[in-house]
Amino acid sequence: MRFQCPIPIQEYDTVTLAHGGGGKLTQRLIRDLFAPTLENPFLSELHDGALLPAPGGRLAFSTDSFVVSPPFFPGGNIGDLAVHGTVNDLAMCGARPLYLSLSMILEEGFRLKDLWEILVTIRERAEEAGVQVVTGDTKVVERGKGDGIFLNTTGIGIILDDVDIRPSRIRPGDRILLNGPIAEHGMAILSIREGLSFESGLESDTANLWPLVQKLLEAGGRDVHALRDATRGGVASALNELAQASGTGVVIQEASIPVREDVRGACEILGLDPLFVANEGRFLAFVAPERAEELLALMRTHPLGSEARIIGEVVEDHPGVVRMETWLGGSRVVDMLSGEQLPRIC
Amino acid sequence: MRFQCPIPIQEYDTVTLAHGGGGKLTQRLIRDLFAPTLENPFLSELHDGALLPAPGGRLAFSTDSFVVSPPFFPGGNIGDLAVHGTVNDLAMCGARPLYLSLSMILEEGFRLKDLWEILVTIRERAEEAGVQVVTGDTKVVERGKGDGIFLNTTGIGIILDDVDIRPSRIRPGDRILLNGPIAEHGMAILSIREGLSFESGLESDTANLWPLVQKLLEAGGRDVHALRDATRGGVASALNELAQASGTGVVIQEASIPVREDVRGACEILGLDPLFVANEGRFLAFVAPERAEELLALMRTHPLGSEARIIGEVVEDHPGVVRMETWLGGSRVVDMLSGEQLPRIC
Repeated sequence: MRFQCPIPIQEYDTVTLAHGGGGKLTQRLIRDLFAPTLENPFLSELHDGALLPAPGGRLAFSTDSFVVSPPFFPGGNIGDLAVHGTVNDLAMCGARPLYLSLSMILEEGFRLKDLWEILVTIRERAEEAGVQVVTGDTKVVERGKGDGIFLNTTGIGIILDDVDIRPSRIRPGDRILLNGPIAEHGMAILSIREGLSFESGLESDTANLWPLVQKLLEAGGRDVHALRDATRGGVASALNELAQASGTGVVIQEASIPVREDVRGACEILGLDPLFVANEGRFLAFVAPERAEELLALMRTHPLGSEARIIGEVVEDHPGVVRMETWLGGSRVVDMLSGEQLPRIC
Repeated sequence: MRFQCPIPIQEYDTVTLAHGGGGKLTQRLIRDLFAPTLENPFLSELHDGALLPAPGGRLAFSTDSFVVSPPFFPGGNIGDLAVHGTVNDLAMCGARPLYLSLSMILEEGFRLKDLWEILVTIRERAEEAGVQVVTGDTKVVERGKGDGIFLNTTGIGIILDDVDIRPSRIRPGDRILLNGPIAEHGMAILSIREGLSFESGLESDTANLWPLVQKLLEAGGRDVHALRDATRGGVASALNELAQASGTGVVIQEASIPVREDVRGACEILGLDPLFVANEGRFLAFVAPERAEELLALMRTHPLGSEARIIGEVVEDHPGVVRMETWLGGSRVVDMLSGEQLPRIC
């Protein structure tokens, strides 16, 4: 830990309703805990909102709430997800992330030490990503009316010049790139939630995807047609969403989809299909076919893309439907989940 | 109701965990309920975030989560607060509200009919305020891990030219304007929560303050030094925050603070001081003394300012402290609340 918790833990060691009441304790929480941990010139004005300079470009704007259970898990905590999740949503719009808001819904009784640890994580991840948390809000609900901590981050980014990333730009022939092995975040959450101890130590893949996406966009420009991170619902849901939004068909090859051995084993034990398990550091890029090999090679030069693969392509047939060519040479439809596989994964 | 609920209520009449799973039911919720209710060109791209044109000016950025209990109350519902709350925070920065994000944390079992009613309210309030809900997110938590519905809205606005609204611009001599009678929102929530039936029918004052603030800023320009809406913690907390942030003292006159008779009566019965009770349509403006009477007269020409008053002024003495001259001719310190008076008021 790089910071000392500035609130004397012995005085109040858990969140109380008064921390959300807008009075002295709310003010102390903001001044003593949030402001020094997340400090930047925008936040220190203690205004109702942040005043930002004119960004001078097209904006991307994205919001995400985080309700992951438990909030601490192998490979990270809810603070990692809160920064990376929204930064990645901006990246998927072709935008350099600039500013985040941070809103918290705390349950009475949540430990201040845990809150502080999450805030320090948020600061560190934000610094790494080059974004500033410029405005915030805190609410407290009674014991039993929440679950420890829920976060919301909403982000503003500047869309790079000469990129145009939209599902509607997907066209038949596009190759589909995936930046690495799948299902790691979901299986990490499940391993701790169910008290399972997989020998191999499954860890979340939570990561800031912007540096890799930036590389891809700077080289590929308008030949990168669409991007989507494969979070809730996994790669299968992301592919289905894009197939439907673009009115095209998708064909993927099962053999080309990277899954780490231990993750595959854990999925088999639990009867889960890794294609549907959530990721927090994986994305799909739909690119023009003539650029696919070059862009794949480029992705592989980055640590977050070292295991990147071309997993399939876009076809005119079966619009809105994703089909998979299996190991055994057959072909089957990969549908969206109709129920809930893993609640509160992010 | 202006809209028909597009989801057949008989099929699923409450929120299920699968509505938050990222699969088919999530998609149906977005496509069948959210997209048509909140429709605009930004939202209909069904992207991970909204792509917005270059706004070409300084931005204001503000976030608020809403956990009000109960979500339906006299004079409005959580959807009114979610739009007005963030729109007002932008207005308090001197910014014309443009875009909102909307994020929901739903508890398993929440009625879809209630969700729909809240969404319709959000649409109507957003239309009136001239803002668009351009991006969103939905999470579902298990029964008993939330409380029906929590909302987050985060807003982007464009700061008007020739205004500079900051607590640090407050100076001794500034007059403090208040746009109307206080404590109505808090007492409305309390009346329904406690099952009290006040004859007079207390109603929340939830309102979009931007039209009135715009008028004030267009006339007052840089002579308007600071603005603050008096939400959680009421007028007393807002004054204390600004006194502390600006390092000045504040003196207010008890006799000049408007409180409706029925609200005052309800406060007396319940032992509450209206100065500390939340408002959702009231704000304080700190203005240069030579402009105060003119700006007061201007505020009174607007329906939301028809009962506006000058309630006090800024002094060099007692920096950071708010004092009140009482009805009886005495003077006392008005401190911030140290505990919680009314939890989950917004």
